[in-house]
Amino acid sequence: MRRLYHYWLCPESRAVRIALCEKKIDFDLEFEKHWECREDFLSLNPSGRLPVFIDGDSIVSEIYAIFEYLEESYPDVPLLQGSVQERAEIRRLISWFTKKFSDDVEGTLLKEKTIKRFTGKGAPCSTAIRAGKINLSAHLDYIGYLVERRRWLGGDHFSYADIIAAAHLSALDYLGDVPWERHSEAKEWYARIKSRPSFRTLLQDNIPGMRPSRQYMNLDF
Amino acid sequence: MRRLYHYWLCPESRAVRIALCEKKIDFDLEFEKHWECREDFLSLNPSGRLPVFIDGDSIVSEIYAIFEYLEESYPDVPLLQGSVQERAEIRRLISWFTKKFSDDVEGTLLKEKTIKRFTGKGAPCSTAIRAGKINLSAHLDYIGYLVERRRWLGGDHFSYADIIAAAHLSALDYLGDVPWERHSEAKEWYARIKSRPSFRTLLQDNIPGMRPSRQYMNLDF
Repeated sequence: MRRLYHYWLCPESRAVRIALCEKKIDFDLEFEKHWECREDFLSLNPSGRLPVFIDGDSIVSEIYAIFEYLEESYPDVPLLQGSVQERAEIRRLISWFTKKFSDDVEGTLLKEKTIKRFTGKGAPCSTAIRAGKINLSAHLDYIGYLVERRRWLGGDHFSYADIIAAAHLSALDYLGDVPWERHSEAKEWYARIKSRPSFRTLLQDNIPGMRPSRQYMNLDF
Repeated sequence: MRRLYHYWLCPESRAVRIALCEKKIDFDLEFEKHWECREDFLSLNPSGRLPVFIDGDSIVSEIYAIFEYLEESYPDVPLLQGSVQERAEIRRLISWFTKKFSDDVEGTLLKEKTIKRFTGKGAPCSTAIRAGKINLSAHLDYIGYLVERRRWLGGDHFSYADIIAAAHLSALDYLGDVPWERHSEAKEWYARIKSRPSFRTLLQDNIPGMRPSRQYMNLDF
């Protein structure tokens, strides 16, 4: 029995969904309102954070631990390949998105627009949303800079770096907040990921009361 | 040539110093005022975050990437050993301290007392410091809970989980902010780590203009 505790617009939950599909691992999805700090959920992951992956008797939580666990347990489709240096670069980029992108963009733009709404913590703050949009453009430029020099974000191979970056952007894209037209290199890279079979289930997401933006499902956006 | 870009009270820089000493790897320390965003430093790590480890031609940044790099490049002294599940648990705890502890405690207590002072960004906020102290007690309880059930934080073996936790606490202990007397299990665990040879150089730290607390160097605190 494999189960992923997730929340629809949680970027890290989305990243694990993509990784599991890439590795062709079957699993069930379990929607968790993590902000409610349900006791049974805290017994799985005391930090109260998503995602949490249940794999038989194994309980694996936190994105970094899940990525590495999947790589060690299911190596047939590698998502962290290359030399020690190349692996370090992929891991640097995972940290970039889970830490820097998350602080700069998700902590402002995404949280203001979603978590605040779900938890009834008041209206979104327009200053925070504006700051998030400015930061997002800088991150899209950085993605463009990388993919002008490399085939994929982390190097020659499709990897967790692409997965975590695309997962973050897909959550924002659901809300229609990614200015693709001003970032052609990042757009071309995202289009390549969007057309992968592993991305398909994400594109079918339709959150009750929150319809996806027009370009979200569109492969030719 | 091996070099670690660090800042004295940066917990993650401290963690890499301990890990390098555990693995008996020689290196030079390079003090970096990361908040000044020096251009040459940003060319090493565009996120502007510490620590950054230079190992010959390899540039490795972000704590997660550095830990895994050291494990792959210098496996003689393992700091991430055990089954796939045990490794996942160590990695979960690394995330606990780099993310949750950092947000709950370092983001309030440590930053208010140090970075604000160094960068001249005004007086420390007493409300934030008070919140940090309350959160710190909860984290010390959690450490106590774990070491009552296991030999080391992550399981049977001394690991990166102990290193990152002790590194965070050592920075706070430098300031005299850890209420050891109310957390005997956590104190006993920290005393064991404090007496390891790898911890010695940290205990000799003496930051200009900021003397360590009385118990900082004391092995019998």
